[in-house]
This record gives sequence, C-alpha cells and structure tokens, in this order.
Amino acid sequence: MKALVYGGVGHRSWVEVPEPALKDPEDAIVRVDAVTICGTDLHILKGDVPEVEPGRILGHEAVGTVLEVGASVRDIVVGQRVLISCISACGRCRYCKQGQYGQCLGGGGWVLGHSIDGTQAERVRVPFADHSLHVLPDNVSDDDALMLADILPTSYEVGVLAGRTSPGDTMVVVGAGPIGLAALITARLFSPSRVIMVDPAQSRRASALAAGADHAVAPEEAEALVASLTEGAGADVVVAAVGAPTSFELGTSLVRAGGHVANVGVHGEPATLHLETLWIKDVTITTGLVDTRTTPLLLRLLSEKLLDVSSLCTHRFGLDEMQDAYDVFSRAGDTGALKVALFSPESVA
Amino acid sequence: MKALVYGGVGHRSWVEVPEPALKDPEDAIVRVDAVTICGTDLHILKGDVPEVEPGRILGHEAVGTVLEVGASVRDIVVGQRVLISCISACGRCRYCKQGQYGQCLGGGGWVLGHSIDGTQAERVRVPFADHSLHVLPDNVSDDDALMLADILPTSYEVGVLAGRTSPGDTMVVVGAGPIGLAALITARLFSPSRVIMVDPAQSRRASALAAGADHAVAPEEAEALVASLTEGAGADVVVAAVGAPTSFELGTSLVRAGGHVANVGVHGEPATLHLETLWIKDVTITTGLVDTRTTPLLLRLLSEKLLDVSSLCTHRFGLDEMQDAYDVFSRAGDTGALKVALFSPESVA
Amino acid sequence: MKALVYGGVGHRSWVEVPEPALKDPEDAIVRVDAVTICGTDLHILKGDVPEVEPGRILGHEAVGTVLEVGASVRDIVVGQRVLISCISACGRCRYCKQGQYGQCLGGGGWVLGHSIDGTQAERVRVPFADHSLHVLPDNVSDDDALMLADILPTSYEVGVLAGRTSPGDTMVVVGAGPIGLAALITARLFSPSRVIMVDPAQSRRASALAAGADHAVAPEEAEALVASLTEGAGADVVVAAVGAPTSFELGTSLVRAGGHVANVGVHGEPATLHLETLWIKDVTITTGLVDTRTTPLLLRLLSEKLLDVSSLCTHRFGLDEMQDAYDVFSRAGDTGALKVALFSPESVA
Amino acid sequence: MKALVYGGVGHRSWVEVPEPALKDPEDAIVRVDAVTICGTDLHILKGDVPEVEPGRILGHEAVGTVLEVGASVRDIVVGQRVLISCISACGRCRYCKQGQYGQCLGGGGWVLGHSIDGTQAERVRVPFADHSLHVLPDNVSDDDALMLADILPTSYEVGVLAGRTSPGDTMVVVGAGPIGLAALITARLFSPSRVIMVDPAQSRRASALAAGADHAVAPEEAEALVASLTEGAGADVVVAAVGAPTSFELGTSLVRAGGHVANVGVHGEPATLHLETLWIKDVTITTGLVDTRTTPLLLRLLSEKLLDVSSLCTHRFGLDEMQDAYDVFSRAGDTGALKVALFSPESVA
Repeated sequence: MKALVYGGVGHRSWVEVPEPALKDPEDAIVRVDAVTICGTDLHILKGDVPEVEPGRILGHEAVGTVLEVGASVRDIVVGQRVLISCISACGRCRYCKQGQYGQCLGGGGWVLGHSIDGTQAERVRVPFADHSLHVLPDNVSDDDALMLADILPTSYEVGVLAGRTSPGDTMVVVGAGPIGLAALITARLFSPSRVIMVDPAQSRRASALAAGADHAVAPEEAEALVASLTEGAGADVVVAAVGAPTSFELGTSLVRAGGHVANVGVHGEPATLHLETLWIKDVTITTGLVDTRTTPLLLRLLSEKLLDVSSLCTHRFGLDEMQDAYDVFSRAGDTGALKVALFSPESVA
Repeated sequence: MKALVYGGVGHRSWVEVPEPALKDPEDAIVRVDAVTICGTDLHILKGDVPEVEPGRILGHEAVGTVLEVGASVRDIVVGQRVLISCISACGRCRYCKQGQYGQCLGGGGWVLGHSIDGTQAERVRVPFADHSLHVLPDNVSDDDALMLADILPTSYEVGVLAGRTSPGDTMVVVGAGPIGLAALITARLFSPSRVIMVDPAQSRRASALAAGADHAVAPEEAEALVASLTEGAGADVVVAAVGAPTSFELGTSLVRAGGHVANVGVHGEPATLHLETLWIKDVTITTGLVDTRTTPLLLRLLSEKLLDVSSLCTHRFGLDEMQDAYDVFSRAGDTGALKVALFSPESVA
Repeated sequence: MKALVYGGVGHRSWVEVPEPALKDPEDAIVRVDAVTICGTDLHILKGDVPEVEPGRILGHEAVGTVLEVGASVRDIVVGQRVLISCISACGRCRYCKQGQYGQCLGGGGWVLGHSIDGTQAERVRVPFADHSLHVLPDNVSDDDALMLADILPTSYEVGVLAGRTSPGDTMVVVGAGPIGLAALITARLFSPSRVIMVDPAQSRRASALAAGADHAVAPEEAEALVASLTEGAGADVVVAAVGAPTSFELGTSLVRAGGHVANVGVHGEPATLHLETLWIKDVTITTGLVDTRTTPLLLRLLSEKLLDVSSLCTHRFGLDEMQDAYDVFSRAGDTGALKVALFSPESVA
Repeated sequence: MKALVYGGVGHRSWVEVPEPALKDPEDAIVRVDAVTICGTDLHILKGDVPEVEPGRILGHEAVGTVLEVGASVRDIVVGQRVLISCISACGRCRYCKQGQYGQCLGGGGWVLGHSIDGTQAERVRVPFADHSLHVLPDNVSDDDALMLADILPTSYEVGVLAGRTSPGDTMVVVGAGPIGLAALITARLFSPSRVIMVDPAQSRRASALAAGADHAVAPEEAEALVASLTEGAGADVVVAAVGAPTSFELGTSLVRAGGHVANVGVHGEPATLHLETLWIKDVTITTGLVDTRTTPLLLRLLSEKLLDVSSLCTHRFGLDEMQDAYDVFSRAGDTGALKVALFSPESVA
C-alpha cells in the first residue's frame, strides 16, 4: 500500500510500504477513507518532535472502514465506518479509568503517527480498537467527522472546558487557526457573551469573523480591545491556541483576576510567567493533551446538527495527492488553508 | 500612641503617631492586644512593594478589642475581642459577592499596612468592620488566633484548597517557613498520604518534621525523593510557598501529569514556565491572594481543637519591643524564628 | 397611596394605605413603575401560606425608581431605575456570604409580600437596599426586567444550574407555566440537545412550542416519549416546575440513572419518593428557594440580547387595574395568561 | 465443590455444586480464600430481591487467588491474590467510561450472587477480570481486605463523597451497622467536626462509640441533639445507612438548609418526602449503587495504615461453617455481629 513516510528532518515521501497487520488481540486494521494533516505533522517534519523516527508513517486523524479485528476486540466489528481518534487508550490504567486517555500508561495516548505508524496511508493498524475507534452515525459525512479526530475534542476539552467557559463570559482565543476556530465553535455551547479572536494574519481574522467571532484583532490590538469591552477587568477565559511563548504570554496578560488561561498550543520552548503580577490575581492556568473523552458527545451533537464544522475544511484532495495536500497545508499563509482533507475513492462525502 | 512606621527603604521606627479616628461609617477602631510580623513586611522594608509610602504604619495581622464603631456597623460592637484579618472587604462588589474578598473592588482587599495604616500600633482603624473583623471564641488564645489573621487562611485557601488536596495524595510543599508549615497543618484536614516539605535550611526542615511532615528534604533532593515515593509519577499537589522563581520552577518539575501546582508565594520577578514539557501534562497552576473566606471555619476548628497551630509561634515580645521582634524575625536563619508575636498588657494569652 | 392588601383567605382589595417610610438605615423607598403577580400570590390567597397575615400588601416582583435611601445605603442612590428582587439579603450572615441569599439569617430572604409589605403598591420599602436592588441598564425595558425579579433567576438557579444542565442533554420540564418556560429559555444557555415540556393544558403546550421547546406532551405521554428519545435510558435533567406531588413523582420516574431532578415547585404537601426503584439509580434530587445570585448575569444577558423573554408576558394593565389583572392571572386556563404586568404612568416600556 | 445455594424464599444450603468454568475470554476463575455475608444476602433470602433465582450461589464479597484467566485478560494473572469486588465492569460502556461501574450496561454492575453465581463457594467465576478484580498488597490481610469488597467503597462513595463531607461538618449517620460504621470511618478522611450515629440498638450505639463516633443516640433523641449541636441549624451531611422509610425520613428532617442527604440504604418500599418543608431548603438528596471506583484508593490507604477497619469484623469462621455464619449474622441483634468472615485453609490472615 501507499503511505506518507517521514524520512528525517525536512523529508517526507508518499511511497509503497508493507501492509499493516494485527499485532495484538485488541488491534483493528482500518481502511483509510478520509484523512487530514495536523500542524503537529509539520512540527515533526521540522524536527521539533525528535522521538518520531525516520521511517514512521505520519498522521493521527482519519475516518475509515474496519477491515479486520483482533480476537479480544468486542464492540468494533468488520465493516463498520469509524472515526480514528488521535488518542488511543488501553482503558485499564489509572489514567484511563479517570477518562484521562491522553495520559494512558498502558500503551495508548498519542501513539498514531508518533510512536507507531499512523493514518496517512491506505490502511492502518489501530491499537485498543474498542477504546480508540468511534462508530460513525450515517448522517455524519467523512468531511465533518474528520474534524472530530483531533481538533474539536482538543479545543473543547483542553480549551473550552478546562477554561470553565460559562454563560456571559468574555473569551479570548489567541490564534485563529483550526484549533482556535474549533475553540470558537465549541465555546458557543456555553453561551459566552463574546469571543475575541487574536491573530496576526488578516486572512485568519477574516476566517474567524466568518465563523462567528464577535471580534478579530491583531495581537497588538488585543489588550486595548479587551480592556474596553470589560471595563478594564480582562477576559474571563483565555484559550492560548498557538504553541509560541509570546502567544501564551499575551494570554496571561489579557485574563482578569479570577480568570482562566487554558493552553492548547504545542510548545517547543519555555515561556515567561509573569508571577510578579499574576501571583495576586487568582489566576488558573491549565495545560493538557486531549483525552477525546468528549468525542462521543461531539459526534452526537454533529449528528444532531448542533455543531457546524463546515467552515473548517478549506481544501480537498484525493488520497494519492498527499504531497500536494502537505504543500498547500504547510503554506497556509498563502493558501488560506485551515484543514485539508484527503479522500480515498471509497469515502462517504 | 506608638506605632511601627515605615520610613522608606530600609527604615522603620517605633514612634509616637496620632490616634486613629473613624473616617467612614463602616469603620471600627480596635485596640491591638496582639500582633505579628509578616514576611511581606520585610519585603516592604526592602522596597519590593513600592506602592507603600513612607509614613505608613505597617502590619496586617492582629487580635484586639473593639473600642469604637461607625454608624453603619451592625454586627461588631464595642468591647468585642476580635481577629483583625489581613483582608478587608466591602461586601458589596462583584468579587466580594463571590467570596473573593482579596480582589475587592470597593476599597477592601489587602489594605492594612499597605494603602492605609496597619496593625503594628497600639490602636488601628479597620474599614468595613462587619466584613473584616471576626469575633473570637473565648477558648481561643490570642497566640493561636494570630495565626489565623493571615497564614492559615492563606495556606489553606491558596495552597490546600486551590491545589485540590485529597485523601491519599502525595503533596509537596516547597518552603518550610510559616506559610509552608501552615499548608502542612491545614492539608491534614484532607488526609493526604504524605506531605514532603522542601527547604534549603536544616533548621526549617527540622521544624517541618516536628510539625508532622512525613519527609523534609533540601531542594536538590526533592526530585529523587518524589520519584521514589510515586513510582516516578510525581506529586499530586505541589504548594509553592516561597516567592522565588526557582522555588516555583522546582514545584512545576515535581508535579505529576494531571496534578496541581498552587502558588502561595509573593513574587517580585517572573519565573520560567517550562511549557515544552508541561503543555502535554494536564497540569493546573493556580495563583492567588487569600480571601479569608475560610477564616470563620478555621476559627471554629481551632476552637474545637481540630487544628493545632502551637508549633508556629516561636518568639514572644511585649508590644513596645517591636524593633527587637523585627530584628529576630528578619534574621530567621539565625534565630530559628517562624512567627513572632507581640502582646500588649491587655492580651488574653 | 393605593396597594393590594391581603384580607385573609380569599380576600384581596386595592385600597388606600399609609405611605411606606424608612425603618432601618439600610432601607430604600422605591416608587413602583411596573409590577407583576406570582403564582405564589395566588397560593397566599388560597391560604396555603398561613404565615402571611391579613393586612399585608402582597407582591415580591417589581421595577421602580428610588425615592429615598437610608443613611447606611452606599451603592443605591435616589433617582436610579432599579429591579426589586424577590429576595432581600442582609449580605453579612453565613448564608449570604456564600451567595445563598434565599436562606438569609439576618432578616432577608423572601420577605416582600410575605413577612413585610410588598410591591403591589404605588411605593414600597425595600430592606437592605444595597443587596436587594439591581440598577437597570437603559436598554432593558420594564417589561423584560420584570421577568428577572423572580421567574428567570428561580428557573435558572433552582432548575437549570441545580440540575447541572449540560451540552447535549435531554431535559424534561414538568409544567409549562411561567417558571417552566423560564427554565426552557435559560436552559438554552447550556445547549441541551432537546427540551421536552410536559403539561396537561393544550394551551400551555402550544406556548411551550412557540417558545422553542422541542417537544410538548401531556403527562401521560411523557414516559413513552422520553424513552423513545433516549433509547430507554431516561432524561439527563428533569426540572419539576409545578408544586404538586404528582408532578414531582412524574419527574423522578423520567430521570436516567445518574441524572438530576431539580425541584422548583412550591409544595404544600408531601410527595412519595420511590426509593424502591431510585435507591440504585445514582439520582440527585435538589430543592431550593432562589438566591438571585445570578440576577446580575441574567440582567446583562438580557441587555446584550442573549436572552429573549418576550414570550413570557401575555397581558398588560395599568397599576390601578390590579384587581382585573389578578382576575385574568388567576384564570390562566381560560385567559392563556402567563405573566401579567401592571404599569404606572411613569413606566419605561 | 461446595457452595451456599439459594433455594427459594427462606431456604439456603451448603451443598456440592459443579465447578465454575470460563465462559467468556475476559473471565477469571478465582479460589475463594475469605468471604463474607452482606445484609443484602439476608434480603434475598427473605424474598426482597425476586430477580434472584433459586439455584443461585450467593455472595458478592471475597478475597481469593486467581486460578485461571480467559484469553482476553491482560492485567490479572494466575496466582495473584485478589479482592473480588461486589461490582463487575465491562469497562467499555457509557457508564463505565465515566467510572459509574455500578450502572454498567455491558453485563457488569452488581451481578455476582445476583444474576450469576457468587462468591460464597470454594471457587467462583468473575467476569471482566481486568476491571473487576484488584490485586492485593502483601501487607493487607484477608480480614481487612474483605471490608473493601463492598462496605467501605459503598459508604465512602455513596455516603461520604455523595454527601460532600467537608472539614468542620456536622455529620449524622442514621444506622450504626456495618455500612454506617464504614461511613464513620471513611468520613474521617475529610475531618468533619463531629459524627453523630443514630441507631435504636444499644449494642450498635456502643460499637459506634468504640469506633470513634462523637455521639451515638436513639432515633427519637436525634433531632434534639442535632439542634443543640448546631444552634438549631441542622446537620451539614446526613448519611441514611438503613433501607427503611423511617430512617430516610429521619435523615431528611435532620439536615440543615443547604445540606446533603446521601442515601446508602437498600430500599424495598417508597418513603415520604416532605416537600412541604424541604422545597425551600436548598437540600440535595442523592441515591446510588457503589461504583467501586475508589477501591484502589481505599486499598492503598489501608496498606498505608491510614484507614483502620479492624472494628468491623466481629466473628470468624471456617468456610465450611457457612451455615453457622449465616445464623450468627442473621441474629445480629443477639450476637452483636457486624461483619462475619469465613476463611478457607489457604487464607492469609
């Protein structure tokens, strides 16, 4: 079969690789019908995630059809149309028992396209199938379902819920990329009074406004706007959706006394925490990897048309156009790409 | 009357000052029967709190007797023996209505010995008397009550509660000074399995063990000890009880995935937040000024003998020995001082 | 002035009474610009609330203009347009300090039109003015503000919040009167998947559908509908918005294992609690009197057009048509009345 | 092998039965080293649990040694010494994923000695072994471990935690049997100020005082005592640990406004809920079947000597003295029995 293989820093290739096979009785083999590319994949290609070894098939988000299951798999059966979640879960460890699947100690967590081969391929082995795959309702398209493989639960759990978003809140989202927009969309479930998106790129601010943001401003404008909207108090919730120190630091400067800063970004270096002003402010700062514990709920809300993710996917490709898709996605500034989706001929659009 | 007056960086004097008088109908005038000195007072003397102006009477912790009340005061009456809390509260603003008195927008918060004259004096004016004074039960001594003016509620609210201390937890307290020991004492209310105190000073580690710590180690030993006690996982709760970047940073390195770091220390400069390792760890970091909303509970527990604060006060003085008390307290390394208490002749020991 | 005076069971009169006067330095005298009638007032007239004494002026909901304030009042000033909340609060007692104003031990709670004279009058004395009145934004009409004097905070706090309404929930509201509709409206802030209103009256079911309910059924149809919508599991949240044993009992039969039943109804007799089926079901049942702690939030949401209460007020009268208004409201079955509003000539419509 | 077989209402026999065998790949076969009898077993014998069919082996609490495991079992291995929990869990259903194992929809929940053969036998088949067995630390004796098969997690989860027991609380436990005493013991983890045990039997009140209760009174004395201890306010938390309407009703009469009533008792008939007084009191009433999600924590606390359950087991027997043990246990009023334990020759005392 064909797959997108990481070849060391800066190198990727769409090449023939061996077929995946069951290794563990809880595994499933899934045919990939639709797949997307994550900003994290670009980080891997830049060398920011050194534990990813050359030869690894990338990708941790997909929709597919179950081809084969191991002897211990119970709920997932061959032929089912499934969401492949970015997080696998053993279901038995201390963290899994608390729903913190991202912290799985039993061989799960973020493994696809990281420590084992991933989803940017024609077929993929998924470990712990019962805990890592989600059967898709018929009325959810592959396009829409793809948005729930990673970005929607990530933004909802690590951003909106961790930030305790509540009715009437003033919310700031730093970063209007796919994760930031997903935070905007899922935050609406809790009726904040206003969501202010902050991004240096004019195109992304336009996307944010199109997706329903109340305000979209450049970083240097954020402090004045938030102050004017909150009588100087600051934001109730800040979601830091970019993995850069300055974005996080901007977030901590915008939050009100007693407010929350929820970091969603993937960081490669330390940030400065201004404790000399924050120590007295009753601020709560959270970090986290998605657990995907809310994926079943989000899937249901999608099926019930209570979530609209149609603004997130900007470009569509055939699966064998993988290299083109990477090219478009990696030049998001020029191409206006948010999420790109690749479909096999079998996909249910 | 006599009072301890701040005279600019490095200067303090015990001098004759004018008597306090009612300024607002919610004020009370209280005779100071017992008073203590806070580490924050030393910070002021070093110039770390520049908004404190020369001429200010210092001190925000005391026990006293009500001499006079304003026309709008309802619950507090002349002659009552009261705890003067470090936090005053208007009781009507948005933050006060949520019990976040430390963030009071109506003229309260930390004002005594900060923006108005404080308690290191023979008499003091206390604003918002109904919300800022706590009537003392007869069976609570002045010594013990003094510990509830600041350090017990601070450690309990900003450390133990903000850190979500729970039965069976492994808890680390960085800093074995008065605040750290108060965290140890109040954490016991939630039955953690073990409390590990971290302090570079041998004398303070000895105090910590005497006060019931399970372990007391130097900072450089902490990581190995915590790892050995938690199978490498890290601590459930870390209370950072020292206002230094290295203490806070040590705290964030000791916490487990999913754990809490509760900062209690007063910081004068930024710390480094290692988001490159923390972003993925589901960590919650909190800061805060005490609200003293738990002071009535802590007073009751003290009265019921369910809290024992007797290990905290190491030195006792007469009120007019204020300068000596400052001297002993500021040389805690040599003197072994934790809290020092000064008593007027009228004090109920 | 004129007022609606309770004359013992079954008797009410709109008669001349003495002007109210300040009794306590925290009082305010407010001119009533708009007022409404509560189902509770009808209960009083039936004799169900025997502690209300003949001679009492009824009413606990109004909008008005401040005419005079006591010496200890600080935030409320003469001339302000205010919401008179159904709950007064001393602001200093143990319950008030936790925001549980409905349980005030200091002379507040539900007192207006209950233990002291109420708002169905040309002018009214309001105790604890700083804690019991809410200044109205200019862009909120008297009509709309009236809905926040009691029914919106009651439904939101005692129903929606106590029931832990969450995104994706199946919610049942037993009773489609004003309180039930207010629960429907405020529940939307948390994006339940569906709200099912249950009421025996066809006209009220029609009102419920018009106000946005997903389903409206008669009591005998509820169990089958809820089962069909939840694969037999039951509702996540049930709000029991009628003070009758059968309504409450229906609620406890519709809830899923692990769900919440929030009682909002005012009950005059016991209900049967089917512990023989409920003991094993992990059910949480809550009761409560409104605290009005969310009134400032709800007022803001109303001002920001994030709440629409326009469907609640069905009949409008002049203030001196009080007896007619009572007549229409007490025959809601015939008249289709939900809330009725009475306006003085000075009202801001 | 020998087992205690239910023979219809009023009949039990200790007879030879076929050996258990693996039926499902997630099963384990466990040799029973120690076992106990639950009040629920007596209810079954009285006919109160009609879904239990004649021929069923009773018992849902034991300690044993793993003899055999199914092909899909991963964490549990032959030879391990394990606690057999009263709750089995599929680990994959909606409820299990939230830790609500008692409500398992996948074939677990309370099944042992209920819908499948139980633990009062020489050997037992345990379904979903990975989720239903807990490996025992060496330093926990069989006696002590037995107390964690049901009563400790039941009292802790359904009583202490559901009741939100907090430092300083006044707690009432209605019923001083094994469940009530386990509530007393586990409540101490949260430092309530006082625990008042209520029981009509003098012997049980004596047991309660011996186990550390602050007060132990007869039901008719409870109201006056609680009022005197709380200035008339009522208890913060009431645990209703007897499955009788009068016990539950007493509980709801003792709780303060804003307090919690946590029902732990197994009920066979309805109770009266006095909504005519409770509707206004902000009371939270909870019911529940144990989930045993806290069993790993309680086991660790037992191993760390932070829980002392030694007062709970009053009588010890050999496994083949099962009928005698039932006799002693069922006449607890005469025998003073709390928990009785039966040991096979292989037990680790």
